[in-house]
Amino acid sequence: MHRAVKRLLNIFEKKSERDKRLITAIKTIVGSKPLNLDLYRLAIKHSSIAKANSRGLKESNERLEYLGDAILGAVVADYLFKTFPFKEEGFLTDIRSRIVNRESLNTIGKRIGLNQVVEYDQRKKGKLSHKSLYGDTLEALVGAVYLDKGYRFCKNFILEKLLIPYLNIEEVIKSNPNYKSKIIEWAQKENQEVRFEIISVKNEKHHREFTAQVFVNDQPLGKGFGHSKKKAEQDAAQKSCELLDLE
Amino acid sequence: MHRAVKRLLNIFEKKSERDKRLITAIKTIVGSKPLNLDLYRLAIKHSSIAKANSRGLKESNERLEYLGDAILGAVVADYLFKTFPFKEEGFLTDIRSRIVNRESLNTIGKRIGLNQVVEYDQRKKGKLSHKSLYGDTLEALVGAVYLDKGYRFCKNFILEKLLIPYLNIEEVIKSNPNYKSKIIEWAQKENQEVRFEIISVKNEKHHREFTAQVFVNDQPLGKGFGHSKKKAEQDAAQKSCELLDLE
Repeated sequence: MHRAVKRLLNIFEKKSERDKRLITAIKTIVGSKPLNLDLYRLAIKHSSIAKANSRGLKESNERLEYLGDAILGAVVADYLFKTFPFKEEGFLTDIRSRIVNRESLNTIGKRIGLNQVVEYDQRKKGKLSHKSLYGDTLEALVGAVYLDKGYRFCKNFILEKLLIPYLNIEEVIKSNPNYKSKIIEWAQKENQEVRFEIISVKNEKHHREFTAQVFVNDQPLGKGFGHSKKKAEQDAAQKSCELLDLE
Repeated sequence: MHRAVKRLLNIFEKKSERDKRLITAIKTIVGSKPLNLDLYRLAIKHSSIAKANSRGLKESNERLEYLGDAILGAVVADYLFKTFPFKEEGFLTDIRSRIVNRESLNTIGKRIGLNQVVEYDQRKKGKLSHKSLYGDTLEALVGAVYLDKGYRFCKNFILEKLLIPYLNIEEVIKSNPNYKSKIIEWAQKENQEVRFEIISVKNEKHHREFTAQVFVNDQPLGKGFGHSKKKAEQDAAQKSCELLDLE
């Protein structure tokens, strides 16, 4: 056989090997064979290796991640609504944001084995995987499952294969108190005026650092830092709780 | 007939009159008869008239609003994902947040006639209706429809009865761009440090006026005003975009 043809065949074989591996992985993770494999091929493609297509759109999992994030939010909202029929909206919102946060999704993503299938720039491994590589891929996978199989299937996938096996909801409720709500509750009770302000944003090459400040009756209290506004506010709230001696 | 019995019958009649009116309204707005009327009764009950039930939970539409907000987010995410196959995630996220924002939902809620059915403390009318009374009720209605009829029906309801008739998406895209993200994106790209600061708050009788200032590498750039922090920041960002000649 001509050498070029042989090389081409080799590439095809490798490609189909990769597809077979992906199909097996999806069957294991999702519990059902993919209908449209393209969706899953895209879901595992991190933006660090994305190339622009003919329309100038970078072909990565970011669009699927955006979609999956919204679907995950809806499914978890529904689940908590029904699981806690006597809890107020504030509680449900708080628990939901703790379930769908970056760390928790990253952990679940790793545990279901997305580290075996995600494609990304290996040179950036340490940085990416610590932050959100697997969580982002998990969201993109949810987006792919939703498009491939519909809402009802996707909802069951999220509950039966992700949340129920890997998340202890009682522990989520107990751990990591929401210091921000604590401060707000305290202020309401004590009739104090409290506000949170982002007082600065530092842009660095690969991340941003926010500084938040809690004010009580216009007097500065705790100051906090974080790479998102929310984290900086939580940190500022935690420090304020300590200063106010709230347990 | 005994007077007390008569009065009781009267109350029942009034109640069933109200139910009939509600059923008619739901049929008109949703396009289908309610299966579980309780859900819709709850959806139109604003927290200003909520009473605590035997479990200490205030019976208002807030829980349904939390659920509806999440469902609406998912449906709009799906819709934009499919409508704009060649747009990046940042665009989709930005347009979505402009569609599901408080003002736009409040306007749609009023236009479909939720002002005719929502139950609230009439003494607070001016304050509530300006802010988010109808938008909140709209979200709660979406939650009720989702629980009553399922995701697929609810998705069609959102698209066919709310978004497509009342929202001109091309106008949403053109109008009111998010100048704040524009500045932040520019800063990241150009490796500049940017921060937003509220430099003063004027308290007047019925409203507050905020002044925001954009700083680039600690140098003041655009200054903006508004009766919320967000509006003042947007204004400051817009002026900075003009000064930086960002289109």
